[in-house]
Amino acid sequence: MERHFDEELNELKEKILEMGSIAEKMVDYAIKALVENKEELIQEIISRENDVNHLHLEIDEICLRLLALYQPLAVDLRFITSAMKINSDLERIGDLAINIAGNISILIKQASLKPYVDIPKMNLLSREMVTKSLDAFVNRNAELAISVVLMDDEVDNLKDQLFRELLTFMISDSHNIEQSLAILLISRHLERIGDHATNIAEDVIFMVLGKDIRHHAEEEYRN
Amino acid sequence: MERHFDEELNELKEKILEMGSIAEKMVDYAIKALVENKEELIQEIISRENDVNHLHLEIDEICLRLLALYQPLAVDLRFITSAMKINSDLERIGDLAINIAGNISILIKQASLKPYVDIPKMNLLSREMVTKSLDAFVNRNAELAISVVLMDDEVDNLKDQLFRELLTFMISDSHNIEQSLAILLISRHLERIGDHATNIAEDVIFMVLGKDIRHHAEEEYRN
Repeated sequence: MERHFDEELNELKEKILEMGSIAEKMVDYAIKALVENKEELIQEIISRENDVNHLHLEIDEICLRLLALYQPLAVDLRFITSAMKINSDLERIGDLAINIAGNISILIKQASLKPYVDIPKMNLLSREMVTKSLDAFVNRNAELAISVVLMDDEVDNLKDQLFRELLTFMISDSHNIEQSLAILLISRHLERIGDHATNIAEDVIFMVLGKDIRHHAEEEYRN
Repeated sequence: MERHFDEELNELKEKILEMGSIAEKMVDYAIKALVENKEELIQEIISRENDVNHLHLEIDEICLRLLALYQPLAVDLRFITSAMKINSDLERIGDLAINIAGNISILIKQASLKPYVDIPKMNLLSREMVTKSLDAFVNRNAELAISVVLMDDEVDNLKDQLFRELLTFMISDSHNIEQSLAILLISRHLERIGDHATNIAEDVIFMVLGKDIRHHAEEEYRN
């Protein structure tokens, strides 16, 4: 019985990592489509939405089965309920990739105002946050999870900096407005991906440490 | 034992409703601050953030205790795991209220471009979605939950309509840009509140019907 539970737990971890990897790939394709001006990549994103949705259902089922069958306690119980929450976060990252793709379709049709620098930078950061948060989850590594929470400020700073820059663009020439708005919305979607990674990391910290620092992370870890 | 479980389940329902009501109130205060130009209401929002965070932790604890102590099965198990997910959605609605308040602080300092009509309309709609989705949850009412999923298009349409209007404003006069951007971001936050209500409703449908229509709601229920 014991070994079976561990096997199913491992399957759950693998599915979570697989889902995370697909969701990240979707966002990467979107940013690549933008930077390299390749509209055909948008199709790659859309074709992966079904995979994410399918895994979303599958992971929920695995979790419910594990809870019902093994009635786990303490850290195992928290691992499974965390997996259910992380599952929702990953599904929404997939949705955000679709939203980003929508904004990028608008941008690809036009010549870019200037090379895209901040958006790929934000993507790299939020991607790193997602990867690390999932890594922290499967390895029950609270320290790594804390490092993710601390990265969120960086993403927010980039977003604010880009906002000010875009505002200047828009005010200086009304022809820039539509394009700037699309970039602005993309930056907000990337920020939200960072937020989801932060949520995942906070779940991991709670899971491992068994106390809830979710609303105290800033005070406790920012010093 | 049985009665005790039901009592704790009722306590859980009450806490979820309480949290939903506080989160909704936070958003309402924000919109009221905007429409009636009352900056002092912003403080009302911020002072409630702690209540939401506190309930967030409390509800998660109740759920984990119920799972560990009673090891419920079938619909009761799904009720509790749904409660954990709904808990996250409500916490994020509270966060969105704070975001909205930030944008409103920018707007209150300036004379408005025109009376705010669409933003209060979007708020009413997304608020109704949240109320109905929670009502559907505590009463295990799938039909009501389906009606919430169907309302999401209305919110999206309002958002798109407002976007086009704001774009025209910005292009016609660059003095409108900063204000229009703040309104645009508020409308996106309200849209996300509608999305959270949709997530809650989809959880309820799954919980009640026991099959997962989360990624088929459109095809199955939109005809």
